Amino acid sequence: MARMLVIYKTPKDPAAFDRHYFGVHVPLASGLPGLRRYEVSKGPIRALASARDPYLVATLHFDSMSAIQEAFASDLGKQCAADRRVLAPNDEDLQMFLFESAEAMGVLTRR
Amino acid sequence: MARMLVIYKTPKDPAAFDRHYFGVHVPLASGLPGLRRYEVSKGPIRALASARDPYLVATLHFDSMSAIQEAFASDLGKQCAADRRVLAPNDEDLQMFLFESAEAMGVLTRR
Repeated sequence: MARMLVIYKTPKDPAAFDRHYFGVHVPLASGLPGLRRYEVSKGPIRALASARDPYLVATLHFDSMSAIQEAFASDLGKQCAADRRVLAPNDEDLQMFLFESAEAMGVLTRR
Repeated sequence: MARMLVIYKTPKDPAAFDRHYFGVHVPLASGLPGLRRYEVSKGPIRALASARDPYLVATLHFDSMSAIQEAFASDLGKQCAADRRVLAPNDEDLQMFLFESAEAMGVLTRR
């Protein structure tokens, strides 16, 4: 299993962000090939340590890193990437992490 | 459902980090009251936009934010917080996010 984790900073206009995110981006991204599940944070996020000003956390579940690459490379993936620029015009507005994921107890020292 | 998301920066000694994380921290945190699931990234993380130098992403699943608060307040929660300082002595070494989570398609504009 693999994850695309996206953390958006608090936007200047949260209401406009919400309208676009849930009205346009979610319906678009939900059609990505290979997407198994799409979770988002709901309500305020408590930020600790060096986390700064988060607004929304999205976790997209895929079967593998290659499935994520295929989704990115698809027409819909390109549309999602362009649409992300509407939500978060600057790279400083979001962090994105792509990784294989496993049950912690199953990984132990075998990384 | 609620999530505790922890993103560790790349440590100076990754092998020592791995030994402590999987040998001590995971067994400790796995006993947290209310913990439903504990996922970790496996292998290298691809970082995009403003994400910088991530090494490990951990996602701990709980039923609710209050369950997370109870886990934090427990004796084991306090041990985990102290042990986290061994893994990541400085706040700059990690980001932590606590939030309620929902299926994206179910949230839509109803945040």
